[in-house]
Amino acid sequence: MSTLDLGLRFFLQLAVILACCRLAGWVGRRWLGQTQVVMEMVAGVALGPSLFGLLAPDWHGWLFVPTLTTLTEDGPIQLLHPSMAILFGLGQLGLVFYIFLVGIDLDTDHLRASLGSAGLISGAGIAVPFALGALLAIHFLARGGLFAPGVATPLAVLYLGASMSITAFPMLARILHERGLTGSRLGTLTLAAGAFDDAVAWCLLAIVVASITGNSGFAVLAVCGGAVYCVVMMTAGRRGLASVGRRWEERGALSAGAYSSILLLVVSCAAVADWIGIYAVFGAFVCGVAMPRGWLSREVVRRTEPLTVTVLLPIFFVYSGLATRIALLDSWNLWLLTAGIVAVAVVGKGAACCLAARISGEGWRDSAKIGTLMNARGLMELIILNVGLERGVITPRLFTIMVLMAVVTTLMTSPVYRWIEGSPTTGPRLR
Amino acid sequence: MSTLDLGLRFFLQLAVILACCRLAGWVGRRWLGQTQVVMEMVAGVALGPSLFGLLAPDWHGWLFVPTLTTLTEDGPIQLLHPSMAILFGLGQLGLVFYIFLVGIDLDTDHLRASLGSAGLISGAGIAVPFALGALLAIHFLARGGLFAPGVATPLAVLYLGASMSITAFPMLARILHERGLTGSRLGTLTLAAGAFDDAVAWCLLAIVVASITGNSGFAVLAVCGGAVYCVVMMTAGRRGLASVGRRWEERGALSAGAYSSILLLVVSCAAVADWIGIYAVFGAFVCGVAMPRGWLSREVVRRTEPLTVTVLLPIFFVYSGLATRIALLDSWNLWLLTAGIVAVAVVGKGAACCLAARISGEGWRDSAKIGTLMNARGLMELIILNVGLERGVITPRLFTIMVLMAVVTTLMTSPVYRWIEGSPTTGPRLR
Repeated sequence: MSTLDLGLRFFLQLAVILACCRLAGWVGRRWLGQTQVVMEMVAGVALGPSLFGLLAPDWHGWLFVPTLTTLTEDGPIQLLHPSMAILFGLGQLGLVFYIFLVGIDLDTDHLRASLGSAGLISGAGIAVPFALGALLAIHFLARGGLFAPGVATPLAVLYLGASMSITAFPMLARILHERGLTGSRLGTLTLAAGAFDDAVAWCLLAIVVASITGNSGFAVLAVCGGAVYCVVMMTAGRRGLASVGRRWEERGALSAGAYSSILLLVVSCAAVADWIGIYAVFGAFVCGVAMPRGWLSREVVRRTEPLTVTVLLPIFFVYSGLATRIALLDSWNLWLLTAGIVAVAVVGKGAACCLAARISGEGWRDSAKIGTLMNARGLMELIILNVGLERGVITPRLFTIMVLMAVVTTLMTSPVYRWIEGSPTTGPRLR
Repeated sequence: MSTLDLGLRFFLQLAVILACCRLAGWVGRRWLGQTQVVMEMVAGVALGPSLFGLLAPDWHGWLFVPTLTTLTEDGPIQLLHPSMAILFGLGQLGLVFYIFLVGIDLDTDHLRASLGSAGLISGAGIAVPFALGALLAIHFLARGGLFAPGVATPLAVLYLGASMSITAFPMLARILHERGLTGSRLGTLTLAAGAFDDAVAWCLLAIVVASITGNSGFAVLAVCGGAVYCVVMMTAGRRGLASVGRRWEERGALSAGAYSSILLLVVSCAAVADWIGIYAVFGAFVCGVAMPRGWLSREVVRRTEPLTVTVLLPIFFVYSGLATRIALLDSWNLWLLTAGIVAVAVVGKGAACCLAARISGEGWRDSAKIGTLMNARGLMELIILNVGLERGVITPRLFTIMVLMAVVTTLMTSPVYRWIEGSPTTGPRLR
């Protein structure tokens, strides 16, 4: 395949991806009260083998080519087709930039403000689903076919526990923002609990990735290196970025060179985090948290967000969707299992958070709202699932089940929230 | 190679590319009076086998992997390595978005304003280098080793003629803008001549690409399809975009959905142009020209430019640089030839434009300035060279010679302009 064919295919893929994300977003806003970003998750699954591949297998096979077998000196190996490699790279770049922006948005003040109740809610929202996930992992290991062969029990327990306990902080932040609740009691509490949950989820992810390597030397490098990385970024990095921010704010405009240097830092953080053995995205997130709040961050967000959110991030959703094969759920048993996992996820996260909020003194209605918001899995869940699939912890079958769980819990959030609120208006119009 | 390795390598590549472009830009501004974009062209060549590959062949081989041999049903074929495919895709996306922005910037009023002199200058600036390029092509065909085997004489003549007659319109527009000369007599005249040249260059490129296909059916499709595409975009497309612009301007803000739809249109135009058989970049350029001037364009530029210019476009320069192998110029003969081509390019373009300006009534000094500005080749030259290499018209050797010609003529522009002006201040600070 020449680069000419590759170019044509790439632009066709991109046109199809953007068109489907627009269409899905429009349908979601118009009839389902869903947000653009949620519908992009759905569009990603629909563009994969689960719907597009089922309806038009020939077109799907041409547009999204499977892997190729390649001759190397060590014999034949499986290789990503170049056109899929492009989508992978663009998606990764979009993810890294987006999570960097999420890190910038993380309001550390919320964390400090309401430590008590928020700690209880978020603690319950991690401990209960983690415990349920751990039990499921032991059951799944005995059942077979869901974890990759040879995965050790502690890793499986840790991985599924972490996967069940994730909260979509960026999503709940946006829903609260759209409803004008960011400054309210409910808003502050939920944001604090969500932010805390998010931080814990990133640590869990780092520990999971470190454990996957198996080799204890690598695991030590990952844990120690990750800790050193965080400390360096939150002290020297934070101070350095703050002084850069002050200097350019005084000049009144951020030069193209300074902006480019900040993006260079983000990309370098991603490379370092990948090299240490934690995940590229974690590096970008910490880099975002280290950014000084205020003028510099606003400038960087203003310039980085449009293309990242509009073009790059949808590609990540589609790349994830391509690995999701609903056809792998080929028995009633597996569908029952999926339903069970969704139920466990909702009870473990939503109900536990709701109860914890009630115990810490909120009314039932607000407690239910908090539980609903904390229950959304969103993008974070896709990240941890992709890590598990890439690094050979879970099979494509369990990946598919968990993606469905993430999609369902995320899709539930807006309608259930409106139902609890008792105001059947149109859904929150995010982004 | 797993996607994990691929991700790590991709972020490392990107960090190295961005760092080198920053460093080159800084050196260029500080000591050479050169612009960022020119120095990115130089950085691209330096990161290729010509410098980085010579100094540290092992590191270079690991970071920028060559092609792989791949088994398919039809036997082994050469395939882009996935990590290079990512760079190719990102570079193409950057190029398409950037040229779309260039199309938006093209001031069609300049074209109408000073048709007479501008037509003479730009006519001379196309006819003379085209004729000289055609003569060179006939000589090169007889010499061998520069054009790919089996390339027909008319195609070689057309291709080298077009390659010699290109002007870097975006570059000269920026230099004039930085010097505050856009509204002056010199500025208007040069911009008009440059814009005319640019339009002709795109047509030449389309004709070249159409001729390359060889198959007359394809060529007819390319020429007719390209004409239909232009007409549709400049009538229906232009009116549609104008009405979209008016609607959103009234609402006071461009929604993320509308912005995304415009980018979808750009990507679709690129795909259609590639499919017709003209070049993706041509589709994006016409789409940019069809955009309504004013609010909508400003909004789209504001959102699209930062990431495109900072991250994506440098990748295109580096991808071009990787194909440039100065080691291929392995004899004094070839270096003499390169010097000769540079001389022919400068005389053919610069001197011809200077003379034409003098004939149409400008003073010698202004004529010399116009000739200098028109002589820069810049990005456009790299585009036509990549097309020639991809589609098997020229050999990597001639590609290398022509890239050197493009780099030298582009590097010349700022210093020679300042020398003519007689004001040895710091160079224009572009971007």
